[in-house]
Amino acid sequence: MKTRMVFWGVIFMTFFMPVWAVFSGEKDGKVGDALSVIHNRKSVRSFTGEPVGRETLDRLLRAGMAAPTAVNRQPWAFIAVTNRKTLDSLAAGLPYAKMLHKAGAAIIVCALPDKAYEKKAEFAIIDSSCASQNILLAAEALGLGAVWTAAYPEKERMDFVRKTLNIPQDVIPLNVIPIGYSTGVDKPKDKYNPDNIHWDKW
Amino acid sequence: MKTRMVFWGVIFMTFFMPVWAVFSGEKDGKVGDALSVIHNRKSVRSFTGEPVGRETLDRLLRAGMAAPTAVNRQPWAFIAVTNRKTLDSLAAGLPYAKMLHKAGAAIIVCALPDKAYEKKAEFAIIDSSCASQNILLAAEALGLGAVWTAAYPEKERMDFVRKTLNIPQDVIPLNVIPIGYSTGVDKPKDKYNPDNIHWDKW
Repeated sequence: MKTRMVFWGVIFMTFFMPVWAVFSGEKDGKVGDALSVIHNRKSVRSFTGEPVGRETLDRLLRAGMAAPTAVNRQPWAFIAVTNRKTLDSLAAGLPYAKMLHKAGAAIIVCALPDKAYEKKAEFAIIDSSCASQNILLAAEALGLGAVWTAAYPEKERMDFVRKTLNIPQDVIPLNVIPIGYSTGVDKPKDKYNPDNIHWDKW
Repeated sequence: MKTRMVFWGVIFMTFFMPVWAVFSGEKDGKVGDALSVIHNRKSVRSFTGEPVGRETLDRLLRAGMAAPTAVNRQPWAFIAVTNRKTLDSLAAGLPYAKMLHKAGAAIIVCALPDKAYEKKAEFAIIDSSCASQNILLAAEALGLGAVWTAAYPEKERMDFVRKTLNIPQDVIPLNVIPIGYSTGVDKPKDKYNPDNIHWDKW
């Protein structure tokens, strides 16, 4: 009887553990397949208040810097904020970023026109947008929630973010991305619309 | 005895099937974990010449439309080109898109300022950039290669793409993304640079 229990115990653990890893989301590198993550990413605005560690933020920033840039100029910088007071100051001054009060961290993606191909702000904005999208996807992949709240192109908001975070005048704070653990209320939208597709010509 | 076999059969299938799905890799939607895809994505400029089917392109376009947009305006449209003559015409007129001759297809991501939040072109460009990044990642996830070749902000190139593909004047062709099967020579770059990261303040 004992042998049989051990036998089934082993069988059960062998199969149960990877199953648990799949259904529990993030588990040491196993982070869901890429297309699922792309489709499951959602704008998370409701956070539990749990903090987000620097190691996790570093993984998000690494993902950001893996984005393509025009002529490989990498015209970007990232401010990762975990300081509670700073997060609350940002929340106070930004109309659509009140969820920062409950977020564990924030990443501000900055576009650097001076480093961009032909010093064009357009390339800095586009390249930094791709980096931001990578960060949003990496957050989803790691079981976190995030949302793009715009600073650019609103002059007042950019000035406020620059002032609060000591950002130089020639740097464009593109967005403020609150990051944290989702309460689960935010769900992905199905935005597929075949009318947006043209085959071969407009 | 029969009842017991059925019982264990059910337990076994319940746990074995998801395990099999995990370890079998790409299998009808199983396409590699998201962080690996983000880091393995590379600008692929060397293609085998194999065609790319509409079903595959549809999967890329679905990924594109899963990107976030300011106030959910979805200010975008997509032209998916598989016609050989059209691909060659685009290659002929675009200085950095000669690889279209060997690509199996191309996607042109178009930004629609009129549909964007507050009708701002900036939002249309940013939202379409995020969609483009999703397309590049989905291509990598599905074993394809792709590369962003810019149309915007170069007036001449935008005009040429508009003319070739019959795109209305108020629509911005953001890029031309050649898509195909990679010969394998293009490799991802490690662009991680800790100097780009600021903690809490600039």
